[in-house]
Amino acid sequence: MSEESVITAEKIDALYERLDEEAEASGYHLNPDREFTRGLVEGLLINEERYGYRACPCRLATGEKQQDLDIICPCDYRDPDLVDWGACYCALYVSDEVLEGKQEVQPVPERRPPEGQRARKAARAPAPGGEPALPVWRCRVCGYLCAREHPPGVCPICKAKRERFERFW
Amino acid sequence: MSEESVITAEKIDALYERLDEEAEASGYHLNPDREFTRGLVEGLLINEERYGYRACPCRLATGEKQQDLDIICPCDYRDPDLVDWGACYCALYVSDEVLEGKQEVQPVPERRPPEGQRARKAARAPAPGGEPALPVWRCRVCGYLCAREHPPGVCPICKAKRERFERFW
Amino acid sequence: MSEESVITAEKIDALYERLDEEAEASGYHLNPDREFTRGLVEGLLINEERYGYRACPCRLATGEKQQDLDIICPCDYRDPDLVDWGACYCALYVSDEVLEGKQEVQPVPERRPPEGQRARKAARAPAPGGEPALPVWRCRVCGYLCAREHPPGVCPICKAKRERFERFW
Repeated sequence: MSEESVITAEKIDALYERLDEEAEASGYHLNPDREFTRGLVEGLLINEERYGYRACPCRLATGEKQQDLDIICPCDYRDPDLVDWGACYCALYVSDEVLEGKQEVQPVPERRPPEGQRARKAARAPAPGGEPALPVWRCRVCGYLCAREHPPGVCPICKAKRERFERFW
Repeated sequence: MSEESVITAEKIDALYERLDEEAEASGYHLNPDREFTRGLVEGLLINEERYGYRACPCRLATGEKQQDLDIICPCDYRDPDLVDWGACYCALYVSDEVLEGKQEVQPVPERRPPEGQRARKAARAPAPGGEPALPVWRCRVCGYLCAREHPPGVCPICKAKRERFERFW
Repeated sequence: MSEESVITAEKIDALYERLDEEAEASGYHLNPDREFTRGLVEGLLINEERYGYRACPCRLATGEKQQDLDIICPCDYRDPDLVDWGACYCALYVSDEVLEGKQEVQPVPERRPPEGQRARKAARAPAPGGEPALPVWRCRVCGYLCAREHPPGVCPICKAKRERFERFW
């Protein structure tokens, strides 16, 4: 981290716009409270300068990339948190329901496992011939497949809603 | 449906633009006949007001969401209809070939099963250990996987055409 | 190829813009050297006129579409070349690392198998019940699945980087 580094308003806006475009393109949404969200984007830029990667602005990173991989934004926990709480841990990302005012943003409990269990989770091996480690969901509209605890809020390909997914495997 | 509701030209245009962007981003296309298409988009907005969801503007919805899930636009039948007929049942969406003038839009026969058989189809269970219920296709360019009767016209990820897909499973 | 055909600067720019948008939307990048890249895009348009499809501008096409399928741009070899060399064979597409100046574009050796072996490769059949022919990768952030030798540089859905992928199958 150099003394001269300056995170200008232009840099924050540029990353904000890029994250917003990327989010919308795949059925995700930034928190519509623009000032709040810009604060988190600034946090991402600070962490990028400090650690070399955009660690979650609401969690304490170690500075060891391999140990922090799961909390590089978007973190491994965003999507399940969107399903269960309507927002990610930071509330940088919110669900359709929150965006449309049908649900309030609530405090999101920390879902990241403690350090010892994290390692074990990462070692989840493919099950040759057997059942996959996570359910595979299929979008009934376009056939998109993804492996996660629950289907996404919106199909990133055809924008059909969660209820159009079926368990495929 | 409230008496005061007004579906303004602005609302129609806003949804038109959004559907158009979403379609193009994933290799789909709205019907290029803009006035015709705006009429269908108005139908979607009318249904959204009436039922709370955007039921297909060319089919009779029941108003019971669970029973109408398969005909919420884009419907479960759009993609196979695009493969077989170059357009969906309403001709809201058309294929590459139709867009490029290589194929005419034809009348699309109703592919939706009668009510009794619909229920059975929805119950299609994952086949543990066995063959999947639908073929899985792989884009030879980018590795995208999807499960559907036939591969899509264009890979939604890398835009390679149908002929670049291979049967993966 | 007709005598009258003219590939105008407007046509080149239009295709350039479209390929650029499609690339960025899915985590790919055109070579940032705009003049160099425009030359390749012109080559794609010349091949489209000559053969009816956009064969790779840096390889010799046969004119028989079925035999050239693997070298229609983007070719079947782009993604592995991006992983191994930071660019495709033509350097039309480059990796994140090259775009960010962390890696130089290097000469990319021809990865396309000789004609006899190509046919055999294309015949790769699905393995019913057994292991798939290629590893299936899962994005730990969004659950995206793809089947390829190595995971992509960036998840086309949520833009998480390669290191966030795990072997799923």
